[in-house]
Amino acid sequence: MSQTSSPQGGSCNIVITGGAGFLGVRLARALLAQAQLSVAGGPARPITRLTLVDRALPPDDLMADPRVAALTGDLNALLAPGAATPVVEAQTDVVFHLAAAVSGECEADFDLGMRSNFAATLALLEACRALKTRPMVVFASSLAVFGHAPGLPLPPVIEDSTLPTPQSSYGIQKFMGEQLVADFSRKGFIQGRSVRLMTVSVRPGLPNGAASSFLSGMLREPLAGVRATCPVPPDTPVALSSPERTIAGLVCAAQTSDPAWGPRTALTLPALTTTPADMAAALARVAGPQVAALIDWTPDAAIYNIVKTWPARIDAVRARGLGLLPDTCFEDIVSAYIRENTDALKPPAR
Amino acid sequence: MSQTSSPQGGSCNIVITGGAGFLGVRLARALLAQAQLSVAGGPARPITRLTLVDRALPPDDLMADPRVAALTGDLNALLAPGAATPVVEAQTDVVFHLAAAVSGECEADFDLGMRSNFAATLALLEACRALKTRPMVVFASSLAVFGHAPGLPLPPVIEDSTLPTPQSSYGIQKFMGEQLVADFSRKGFIQGRSVRLMTVSVRPGLPNGAASSFLSGMLREPLAGVRATCPVPPDTPVALSSPERTIAGLVCAAQTSDPAWGPRTALTLPALTTTPADMAAALARVAGPQVAALIDWTPDAAIYNIVKTWPARIDAVRARGLGLLPDTCFEDIVSAYIRENTDALKPPAR
Repeated sequence: MSQTSSPQGGSCNIVITGGAGFLGVRLARALLAQAQLSVAGGPARPITRLTLVDRALPPDDLMADPRVAALTGDLNALLAPGAATPVVEAQTDVVFHLAAAVSGECEADFDLGMRSNFAATLALLEACRALKTRPMVVFASSLAVFGHAPGLPLPPVIEDSTLPTPQSSYGIQKFMGEQLVADFSRKGFIQGRSVRLMTVSVRPGLPNGAASSFLSGMLREPLAGVRATCPVPPDTPVALSSPERTIAGLVCAAQTSDPAWGPRTALTLPALTTTPADMAAALARVAGPQVAALIDWTPDAAIYNIVKTWPARIDAVRARGLGLLPDTCFEDIVSAYIRENTDALKPPAR
Repeated sequence: MSQTSSPQGGSCNIVITGGAGFLGVRLARALLAQAQLSVAGGPARPITRLTLVDRALPPDDLMADPRVAALTGDLNALLAPGAATPVVEAQTDVVFHLAAAVSGECEADFDLGMRSNFAATLALLEACRALKTRPMVVFASSLAVFGHAPGLPLPPVIEDSTLPTPQSSYGIQKFMGEQLVADFSRKGFIQGRSVRLMTVSVRPGLPNGAASSFLSGMLREPLAGVRATCPVPPDTPVALSSPERTIAGLVCAAQTSDPAWGPRTALTLPALTTTPADMAAALARVAGPQVAALIDWTPDAAIYNIVKTWPARIDAVRARGLGLLPDTCFEDIVSAYIRENTDALKPPAR
């Protein structure tokens, strides 16, 4: 099928929920840079519209792009019947659904999590279904669907067929979202892809309410000359992914054909298995031991009790089949962060 | 702890949703007959109140029991804010949540299934949470959470750790209900137990919208002198449970202590693996070849396409550890049905 014969007239109209967040902004920049998208293995089509839906406005560089529109507000309110501006519309070809309340917030406020992570996902899928155009929906699920359950420990290595037993409300809500995406896809309401994201490191910006926040902070703050705390034992195994490989996984999901994607179950992205001790050693090698010395090793039982339920070793066979590979070493991740964040050596605004 | 020192003053107040349905009525009769319940391994307490919630009134024998109350209406409406009579109240100790739209209905009407199976379950759990008494909630999930997914076949035998990949909206909705029950339990809102029921055979009464309906009808109708159809190949393996063992599984769930119950994941009940050919042979042996000759072997692709995605072999290790065993042979099931249904040889009212 040639580009011009596609039903959308060769253009590609994309919506990103959470589009002003760390990953949303990064995804938007990546999409604008590649300028076109091959939806589900179809012909490459120029990206003509990129709508970033979030509570906050996206950064200026994105707003300056003529292809970018911003829709600001609470996602549930924006999706409510009678809302002024639709989140998705007949021209929408692809939706990346990244908006979510983070794990720590959802554990502290159960209702917030059910509203922000579950109800909003259901409402978004219903809005896509109502279009009757079967848009591509890429749903950002999470490694947090896996947890060591009392009486039902996880296997040593997570495989594509491992049973998720979420041990947090966030994980439960993401896993229910995966089920919705699978059934909306099976029914032909959408073309759905659930992608389980790893803990992303190094995140720029400020700490957030995620229990995994320290896995960026223990690099980011010392690089800015600020002390930071690692709240778990140094030899705790953790599964990480760089921002770059995480974005590559999301874009790949939208571009992969149905047969290549395979089953409607979620695809677990690959991860680099490392430890805080090894991360600190990598930081010392890249930025100097005086930087790594800014890490305080102060255990926090509340955080460790969450982190220790997470799996750390992933055998992402399905992802590998799509060419998605884990980062090779943490030093590369630290180096890339320094390269990309010219203000990384200034203290973060608080 | 002695019976009189329990916080509920030694009484046990039970609610059954779907309480006028086939399994609900049978569960109610079993509970009234045993007269007491040992909730979660606690002291045996007399059952003082049994509220049957359903669209229809329960049969006369139940309504005649002074311990029984009926609450009739649509479950979502009954659970809506401001409803006249609460479904659960401060005195409620145990809820058996059996109410559901069946698989065929949910496949034909997606919104009905989301409302009846998912939204009603969430609303019921929220009502239980609002009590702040952590009631026991036994949720009837289903074998339908398992399905052979394209590109992700089920293993030959289902184990407790097998990943469910539902291939029906009914299965998706039940599986999401399991996740809610697990998280509401983990958060301490309820004491939850999800139990995956097998296809129950022989069900009395009329055919229903379940794709599995024929697995009762091909016995029940011939025993009443009426022709019946088996819509799948005679050698299709199927996993069945008698009504008696199904009820035993539900009661066991309410009575088992937390440590004995184990993880918060759903417990899959045991099943007898058989085939329609073997079921017909058992019928011939018990009731005579002229009865079995009333079965028409007429394939129906729509039904077979659903039934063939169901697993047929279950290794229910957790259930076995609680003393729950499968039926030993289908002849016993047919014989019990004939014994218990004195009108089984009369044609069903239509």
